[in-house]
Amino acid sequence: MLRFSASAASMRSSAIRELMSLATRPDMISFAGGMPGNNLFPVAEMDEIYNKLSLEVKRIGFQYGPTTGYPPLLEALQDYLRQKGMPVDSNNLIITTGSLQAINIVAKVFIDPNDRVILENPAFIGAISAFKSYQAALDPIPIDDDGIILTELQAALQKKKPKAKLLYITPYFHNPAGILYNAQRKTDLLELLKKEDIVLLEDDAYGELYFNAADKELTRPMKTMNSGALPICYTSSFSKYIGPGLRLGWLLAPPEIAEKCELAKQSFDACSSTFTQVLAHEFLVQNKMQAYLEKMRVIYARRAHTMLNALQENMPEGLTWTKPRGGFYIWVSLPDKMDSTEILKKSIANGAVFVIGSTFDPLGVKNDCLRLAFSHTPEEQIEKGIKIIAEALKQQMVKKK
Amino acid sequence: MLRFSASAASMRSSAIRELMSLATRPDMISFAGGMPGNNLFPVAEMDEIYNKLSLEVKRIGFQYGPTTGYPPLLEALQDYLRQKGMPVDSNNLIITTGSLQAINIVAKVFIDPNDRVILENPAFIGAISAFKSYQAALDPIPIDDDGIILTELQAALQKKKPKAKLLYITPYFHNPAGILYNAQRKTDLLELLKKEDIVLLEDDAYGELYFNAADKELTRPMKTMNSGALPICYTSSFSKYIGPGLRLGWLLAPPEIAEKCELAKQSFDACSSTFTQVLAHEFLVQNKMQAYLEKMRVIYARRAHTMLNALQENMPEGLTWTKPRGGFYIWVSLPDKMDSTEILKKSIANGAVFVIGSTFDPLGVKNDCLRLAFSHTPEEQIEKGIKIIAEALKQQMVKKK
Repeated sequence: MLRFSASAASMRSSAIRELMSLATRPDMISFAGGMPGNNLFPVAEMDEIYNKLSLEVKRIGFQYGPTTGYPPLLEALQDYLRQKGMPVDSNNLIITTGSLQAINIVAKVFIDPNDRVILENPAFIGAISAFKSYQAALDPIPIDDDGIILTELQAALQKKKPKAKLLYITPYFHNPAGILYNAQRKTDLLELLKKEDIVLLEDDAYGELYFNAADKELTRPMKTMNSGALPICYTSSFSKYIGPGLRLGWLLAPPEIAEKCELAKQSFDACSSTFTQVLAHEFLVQNKMQAYLEKMRVIYARRAHTMLNALQENMPEGLTWTKPRGGFYIWVSLPDKMDSTEILKKSIANGAVFVIGSTFDPLGVKNDCLRLAFSHTPEEQIEKGIKIIAEALKQQMVKKK
Repeated sequence: MLRFSASAASMRSSAIRELMSLATRPDMISFAGGMPGNNLFPVAEMDEIYNKLSLEVKRIGFQYGPTTGYPPLLEALQDYLRQKGMPVDSNNLIITTGSLQAINIVAKVFIDPNDRVILENPAFIGAISAFKSYQAALDPIPIDDDGIILTELQAALQKKKPKAKLLYITPYFHNPAGILYNAQRKTDLLELLKKEDIVLLEDDAYGELYFNAADKELTRPMKTMNSGALPICYTSSFSKYIGPGLRLGWLLAPPEIAEKCELAKQSFDACSSTFTQVLAHEFLVQNKMQAYLEKMRVIYARRAHTMLNALQENMPEGLTWTKPRGGFYIWVSLPDKMDSTEILKKSIANGAVFVIGSTFDPLGVKNDCLRLAFSHTPEEQIEKGIKIIAEALKQQMVKKK
């Protein structure tokens, strides 16, 4: 009899693995993976970078590095964040193994079993699983097109037993909902939180991927707007700006928190890959990231546009969906409390795959939505895939009647 | 007031960070880092590998991969382990972000606060910090030249409150002690454990680095010798066989345990770097690892020999040290309960650095030993560095009289 920890005993096999294997099957049109398309990666740029590295730097890439990160990358990233108005001098920066590790570390340093964590509903599945692995009590708050609903948040904050420790939000091209917080919502949220004894975990993995330059101002992180004493842990990542395979994210946090996070990371994996940090550093200092992001904004905008058109043309009455202004996702709400699992089954049978709504419900229940990622599917496939899903939906609607 | 978790509240700033910054100062002769020398890494081999990768495979390197690992690497590693007699078909293999992550994951799935973990004294600092981060009650057992002392282990196993959940050992070129378990000790240990309700965590990060081919048989993992029902989690790593900067290790564990470990890893960092997994895969299937290891065995043997000679020639009476037959380390025992911190201070002042003994004591107390790593220091520096440390020791011994 294996005596697992309470944390492990509560772990349940998730649907992610099965779905990802479906999502990468060549005979499937996939809107499932939250990832860039393979043919979009900056391979030529990285070839050039790799082959110009000095022998000395290559050797450093094979070696352990400091737990907080490869110092030249930290410096370049601080410069980059400083230009965005981020308080890099009063906070500590830590390179992490993807931003999921940053979220996991913040969870580790704050959450004891049954501690309450407030988060959006829907929310990023990786964060949900990290919080659950520390046996947090999840308290999901609905969102609208402009962000988390403040009246509901306020009510949650007022509950004192147990008093919430963390608020986790994804304000910029939300995963899965695709929404962008508006300026007012961010200001009001900061105002609301400033009297609270809570830590804000601000997850910003997609903010650079706005479709219109006019929206850039709206992607300004709350971490830059925080005049009070609210502790904000800001996480971001190279996953969507260079490639997830590098496994590089970062955490910007007040020193007292960052010191605990550094110790947690030391016991997790000592340091993130120096090899990929060396490459990311060059990508950043050679200004290849800005050029690459400019190209990606155009491509993702076009894919989103194609998907929105296909939805408009093919979906039956009664459905609604978010209109993304950046990022990777469209979130579709089904009518009449329909269940997205049935629709997924039919879609798969006909060659298209997406992620069902309950995956992103912190309580794993609400299943009347579905997430469509347009980021990794060429335009010519998008229309075909949406038609398959629309057909599955129509069949299901007829069946229900 | 930040409300840290109980785990974070117990985290103390460790000496590792300060020491590592000392260890990499160009004006210091360092025996501190448990790492290969920068000029030993297989840079030319990796250049060749990188530039022959197909565009398709390079793209895969930028992408997310399965949580358990890049499938071609898993397959190649299974073949490699099968040749060593490892039970790869009845166990599951997971690629981890260094073997430290593998150890951390096993700790996560078994340890609740105050659960008892038995481990060697001294022990690998990374494992100590991982166990402590789950608030384990550490129960250290002394070792001799042939392995963990079984009478003491037996007494620890008989204690029932709380009954120990994990036994963590490093039988092959132990870090920090440098010892190699003999065959009898492994057989007796397996015999002793087969009646126990415990999980064996077998850490094998250095086993391939034997100095004499005659010792190869002694590096045979206990994982290959387990005829009974004892659950063994076996961890190893590419860190010492290619380079730590890749951040790639692995875990081989019974399916029921591995499934929990996969879920834990999913919430930690989703997957390890696909980019470096692609490179490690080629290194393995192109047989570059065997050729590289053969060269490293000769170099490390020569460095160990040089250090042993220098110790013999320079150290005052009353000291003893282990005679490594592989790996990276020599463990020096000081006479008369001398304290290694004082000696370190004097050594640093004169330009040589090592790691004090208490770093490796699970309880952080015993400080009458020191660890010397010969792995990353050229031979011409080794003698000079040992002389500095011997001088510091002699001064301290005079002072004590």
